[in-house]
Amino acid sequence: MTPPELNIQNDEPAVARARLLVAYNGSAFHGFALNHGVPTVAGSLTEALSTVSRMPVEVVGAGRTDAGVHARGQVVSCDIPASTDLNLLIRQLNALCGPSIVVREASWASPNFHARFSAQWRHYKYTVLNSPVPDPFIADTAWHVHTPLNLAAMQMACDPLIGEHDFSSFCRRPKVATGEEPASMSRYVMQANWHAEADDLLVFEIRANAFCHQMVRSIVGTLVEVGMGKRRAGDMRGILLAGDRSMAATIAPPHGLCLHAVGYEEGA
Amino acid sequence: MTPPELNIQNDEPAVARARLLVAYNGSAFHGFALNHGVPTVAGSLTEALSTVSRMPVEVVGAGRTDAGVHARGQVVSCDIPASTDLNLLIRQLNALCGPSIVVREASWASPNFHARFSAQWRHYKYTVLNSPVPDPFIADTAWHVHTPLNLAAMQMACDPLIGEHDFSSFCRRPKVATGEEPASMSRYVMQANWHAEADDLLVFEIRANAFCHQMVRSIVGTLVEVGMGKRRAGDMRGILLAGDRSMAATIAPPHGLCLHAVGYEEGA
Repeated sequence: MTPPELNIQNDEPAVARARLLVAYNGSAFHGFALNHGVPTVAGSLTEALSTVSRMPVEVVGAGRTDAGVHARGQVVSCDIPASTDLNLLIRQLNALCGPSIVVREASWASPNFHARFSAQWRHYKYTVLNSPVPDPFIADTAWHVHTPLNLAAMQMACDPLIGEHDFSSFCRRPKVATGEEPASMSRYVMQANWHAEADDLLVFEIRANAFCHQMVRSIVGTLVEVGMGKRRAGDMRGILLAGDRSMAATIAPPHGLCLHAVGYEEGA
Repeated sequence: MTPPELNIQNDEPAVARARLLVAYNGSAFHGFALNHGVPTVAGSLTEALSTVSRMPVEVVGAGRTDAGVHARGQVVSCDIPASTDLNLLIRQLNALCGPSIVVREASWASPNFHARFSAQWRHYKYTVLNSPVPDPFIADTAWHVHTPLNLAAMQMACDPLIGEHDFSSFCRRPKVATGEEPASMSRYVMQANWHAEADDLLVFEIRANAFCHQMVRSIVGTLVEVGMGKRRAGDMRGILLAGDRSMAATIAPPHGLCLHAVGYEEGA
């Protein structure tokens, strides 16, 4: 399939917008976003794409995952030469960035597709190993909690999260310059629930139109305190309504978190 | 429960034989067996057990896994003070050795229990990711094979392995001193089969009374060539009967292999 070209000029190669589906183990990176001097996912992808494309390429990610946070379904948009063979590109990028970063799929997108602004929802998973002993094979992808957790109580505490709310209680507030409006902390949560993937492996799934900074980890930290019996499931609504971050528990560690999928309008 | 004591002398602590169930991610180790100057699983366990027990402790493992090979069910025997609180010991060892090495269980054993010589069978699993792209989350626990594999052919090729055979074709022959009898390569295989754990995740399981050096990886390397169509399933019997290592394929890489379980007589 021939991609829609973005520019046709004399001395520059015609470029087109591509969409990549990317998985990464965040353990080795200081997060997704470019940050000069430290290894980041966007940094590795930018370098590899620029090398393969023989031109400077910029990448846009659907979600800015923090240091140590993983992804199975991060979506990246970028402009690359329209002549690119996408199957070859996948192999080249995986040879350069793998196995910590893996490009799972690549396709051409419409010129106005934007990985971040076109996204309709983000779906995160948070994994807790609830066992007296650790597991060496998931040490960097699950939070190990020794104390037995009450799954039913944690599930019940999810209910108040569903719907549109101000999530200030669960978010790190961004700095606001003098005279500027503070950013809205209102988000729409479509799904929030726990399930046991195995006897000792508890998985929290949450889907929302967007997330504030550290929102999933702050919610998980609080829900786990409910599971430990330190708080009651019924306390959750009050914490949410308070709009006060000091009401929530310490945030859960980053390595249990994974950006599972990002949703777009059909045909985007 | 009070353990059976092995010695009761005046100035030494009474010791008793303990049995540990150990899991480890082999990526960080130069194999199980003690090897001075390089990190090994037995080295880490010996050091931790000696520290906690305040006396020199020696460990015996059921299987000497090679560098990069993992275990979920390695069994270790050792003599430690009979006064040891085993639940506390687990927590202490995991604090010292985790999360790469995890002691899953600890119990007292009879004084003649020997992790290696008392074992009746060993069960290994070998995991192959058969997919066009890698997976960052199992990069160090599965062999990534791009070429599509014929699972039915690989399964058929397992049949001749069952039973008692001389496995010289699939084993690295140990050095024999002049005048000494070469060690027997005869082993009894009780189970050998493949199954698909997911669409792209193929798992080989093999259980035998014991294994020669590199036997599982040599068998897997040859079976995968059958899956690729480079050899026929019907060739397997001839390779086994030849007793000639040059007939087998290159051994599969270590990181797909895991010592899954070790079996002992009931009550051992």
